[in-house]
Amino acid sequence: MCPAYIGTGADVKVTINGMEDNIRAVWFDRDEVKMIDQRELPYELIVISLKDHNDVAESIRNMTTRGAPSIGAAAAYGMCLAALNGKDINDAARTIKDARPTAHDLFYAVDHMLAALKSGEDPIKAADAYAQMIVDKCVMIGEHGSKLIKNGHTIMTHCNAGALATVDVGTALAPIRKAWADGKDIFVYASETRPRLQGMQLTSWELLQEGIPHCVIADGASGHFMRGNAKHGIKGVDMIITGADRITANGDLANKIGTYEKAVIAKELGIPFYVAAPISTFDFGTECGEDIVIEDRSEDEVTMIGDKRIAPLGSKAKNPSFDMTPARYVTGFITEVGVLKPNEISKVR
Amino acid sequence: MCPAYIGTGADVKVTINGMEDNIRAVWFDRDEVKMIDQRELPYELIVISLKDHNDVAESIRNMTTRGAPSIGAAAAYGMCLAALNGKDINDAARTIKDARPTAHDLFYAVDHMLAALKSGEDPIKAADAYAQMIVDKCVMIGEHGSKLIKNGHTIMTHCNAGALATVDVGTALAPIRKAWADGKDIFVYASETRPRLQGMQLTSWELLQEGIPHCVIADGASGHFMRGNAKHGIKGVDMIITGADRITANGDLANKIGTYEKAVIAKELGIPFYVAAPISTFDFGTECGEDIVIEDRSEDEVTMIGDKRIAPLGSKAKNPSFDMTPARYVTGFITEVGVLKPNEISKVR
Repeated sequence: MCPAYIGTGADVKVTINGMEDNIRAVWFDRDEVKMIDQRELPYELIVISLKDHNDVAESIRNMTTRGAPSIGAAAAYGMCLAALNGKDINDAARTIKDARPTAHDLFYAVDHMLAALKSGEDPIKAADAYAQMIVDKCVMIGEHGSKLIKNGHTIMTHCNAGALATVDVGTALAPIRKAWADGKDIFVYASETRPRLQGMQLTSWELLQEGIPHCVIADGASGHFMRGNAKHGIKGVDMIITGADRITANGDLANKIGTYEKAVIAKELGIPFYVAAPISTFDFGTECGEDIVIEDRSEDEVTMIGDKRIAPLGSKAKNPSFDMTPARYVTGFITEVGVLKPNEISKVR
Repeated sequence: MCPAYIGTGADVKVTINGMEDNIRAVWFDRDEVKMIDQRELPYELIVISLKDHNDVAESIRNMTTRGAPSIGAAAAYGMCLAALNGKDINDAARTIKDARPTAHDLFYAVDHMLAALKSGEDPIKAADAYAQMIVDKCVMIGEHGSKLIKNGHTIMTHCNAGALATVDVGTALAPIRKAWADGKDIFVYASETRPRLQGMQLTSWELLQEGIPHCVIADGASGHFMRGNAKHGIKGVDMIITGADRITANGDLANKIGTYEKAVIAKELGIPFYVAAPISTFDFGTECGEDIVIEDRSEDEVTMIGDKRIAPLGSKAKNPSFDMTPARYVTGFITEVGVLKPNEISKVR
């Protein structure tokens, strides 16, 4: 892996040395997979190059790239590399699928590429088409979702379901970008999303790039701001939009740890709770959320910040990466084909 | 202020250089107020000495000492210093009350000392008696609260409402310590409590000192662990116990940001939600929680860890220190006179 500052690519607006440029979270350039190293943001914008599908699997495992759709695109490009390098694509498929357990897009993308490669499609064209399909779906999610956002709305999101997570445009951030582009006056609360701080470090970074008014809050402050307090001039939240890593047949979903709490409080306060995700995130082969395997990550993610231990020596931590939100808390799924209520998702099965 | 490692004092069990010793969070020794510098935990156990009530006010403002009852004791000792130093005690009272806006114990302690000093009581005896009164109440909170804890229970707490927060013993941690001392097999989830990490850095530190089984979790993981998942062997939480910084006449309460979220989710899941606090925390002069002034602290507490900025340059943050939990979410208040339902608190008015 060779880190490099770059300014090539296509669509994510970034500011490099004061100049605006556009790149994607992950793409293919000649014989290499390129991806933004999301672990280095917001400190540095570094793009790495990968030539082997095993390195792509590792980049998914170690969260160089993250976000279910970007993981899917990286997986597709990893399969592409395996094919170009003459590796056994079934072995490669297993290796890449093993990188992380929760996001459905990972399995979907690998299976999609396996079928494409076995039917003789060109590896690069097939992977590029997969990545472009994600972006096109995100654009449609933005179109459908932005209609829910009214002028003056305050929106809360969690983790990063933006361009970084989805090759470009975003899922949860797509309606927000579109509403802002349409001239709507909006404000976004980005909950910081401990332990890895994707809300603070990635979502806020993306919103800064776009100039969208927002602020970062501690995760535990979400309920306080959702409710608001008219006596103290704190306006409540009008809607929540999050992404999803997997949505099961009954409409339950796995998403970043902390999502479930927001969904429960939103219901209690009567705030609409939307989940923005392409249909590739729906896993109709899994009946309900309790069956989803939730990834437990290293306790170091909780007890350390970079190289610095922040917990007492001897403290143990538990670090589930996702939680499960039952379908009954979801107002609607914002997909590329429109906004679906939980009881309507079987339409897209 | 002169930092020093010390091993004098009375009651908080700490391990210094491998030796167990007992000190309080704040106390008076000869002509000085001594307090553990809670900003340095868990890295170092440092006790500072203060000779002027203005420094005591600053130690409250900058959170050298924190937790409503410890703030109250520090305030009482600050008033004691002012009297011993021949300062205008009415001026001192104003200075100390201005240190932080939310915790009711601060105002209660200052008024208590003003009355004692005006009636000619010895300043040191009056302040020591106030601090001891807190400890005695905490012991009774432990007695009453531990009866609610059954063998095998899993308990969740938030922030630090332990010995550090209450001179000694704790409010929320008092029932937990007593249950453990009584031989009950318990497990504690300590939510880390961003932004200042008092749950991770102080509660976990205290539980480690006592050997009480526990783990630290990100705040956003609270709901996940509260619900549990039998299919994946995750036992849910049996009860929540938090402290409180102020409880209004109708039973609403202000406590560390993140408390409200736990209360809402506890109600949704049918988990008892208890608030442990001495009656000095009840503010019968304030009708309801919406009238409580919530302290907004520096956004640096969110965007920085120590000297390191963790948010993108340009990101704004909001940092309310407390949130308000309506009385309807509270199962009971564990006080020194017993466990009171929200509609019973007028008994102790």
